[in-house]
Amino acid sequence: MIEAMARWGPDATGRLQAAALGLYAKQGFEETTVAEIAARAGLTERTFFRHFADKREVLFAGSERLEQIIVGGVAAAPAAAQPFEALAAGLRAAAAVFTPERRDYARQRRAIIAANAELRERELIKLFSLASAIATQLRSRGVPDPAAGLTAEAGVGVFRVAFDRWIEKKNERDWSVLVDESLAELKEIIAAA
Amino acid sequence: MIEAMARWGPDATGRLQAAALGLYAKQGFEETTVAEIAARAGLTERTFFRHFADKREVLFAGSERLEQIIVGGVAAAPAAAQPFEALAAGLRAAAAVFTPERRDYARQRRAIIAANAELRERELIKLFSLASAIATQLRSRGVPDPAAGLTAEAGVGVFRVAFDRWIEKKNERDWSVLVDESLAELKEIIAAA
Repeated sequence: MIEAMARWGPDATGRLQAAALGLYAKQGFEETTVAEIAARAGLTERTFFRHFADKREVLFAGSERLEQIIVGGVAAAPAAAQPFEALAAGLRAAAAVFTPERRDYARQRRAIIAANAELRERELIKLFSLASAIATQLRSRGVPDPAAGLTAEAGVGVFRVAFDRWIEKKNERDWSVLVDESLAELKEIIAAA
Repeated sequence: MIEAMARWGPDATGRLQAAALGLYAKQGFEETTVAEIAARAGLTERTFFRHFADKREVLFAGSERLEQIIVGGVAAAPAAAQPFEALAAGLRAAAAVFTPERRDYARQRRAIIAANAELRERELIKLFSLASAIATQLRSRGVPDPAAGLTAEAGVGVFRVAFDRWIEKKNERDWSVLVDESLAELKEIIAAA
């Protein structure tokens, strides 16, 4: 009965994610099976596969949504916004995902990815995909090349730096604040040259 | 006798590279064997493996040298140079590799990599490695974080944009000119915000 409820319940995804992360951290990503994840979440393997294609997708299921939110933020910037301002609006929009409650999850996820070459590569590909998607959105706003590509590439750099700070154990600042700070720092670095 | 000379000759690497690129372009990377590459270059398989670990390394053997040259350029920038100026010096130093004679090779190589997911991933990993190496060098110059990371990430973006322009069929401008142009454009984009 608990299984029957959980299977369709809004929390099954979260329980599977928490169970997977716990096991990946404890015994390693390679060594963990879907059966173990499902058992730890109190669910069946079949339920796992209703939520995730495989054990790797537990870690990357959110990447597509994150990209959509950032691209949506770029699209929603005022028509008069300069490319770098539109980028900033997109990066700030990720605050919808990077909430204070998600920080522990994000930090654990990062540590698991850092420990596995295949996962690190997958994460890089997702970041590359993010840069491409931002550049495409900027072009559809009328930003020409190479400005669209340069802005998007610099944007992913800012994203990475802001993310590293956001997941720091001692950090208590919100995502948007860290994005603005990193953007301001990049501006300062470039202006100083 | 020709084989005996070529095996140790300075040109064996170049002949193997040219043979490999021709075959990868004609019949695909996956479908090409080391035996075919060696035969086309007029060399033996044994000679191939004396120069390259595998058929993928024919495409990536130069990446390490490129990284060393760029990092060396950052290291050689005057102590008083700002982080972004040191980065610019590093990127310009790649002109030693990106000579006009290498443009056709670079363009063919890029097309082969673009056609294969595994090769695209490998190329991304090399770019990530480049960003990390630049950041490390900037830190050893006394640049603090996050400035070191931000500068390096923006630098790889500039590198990618300059590279795309450099290999364009109609391009006749030198690598350094394109680097400076891309750096100036990034500066303008950021100053406009």
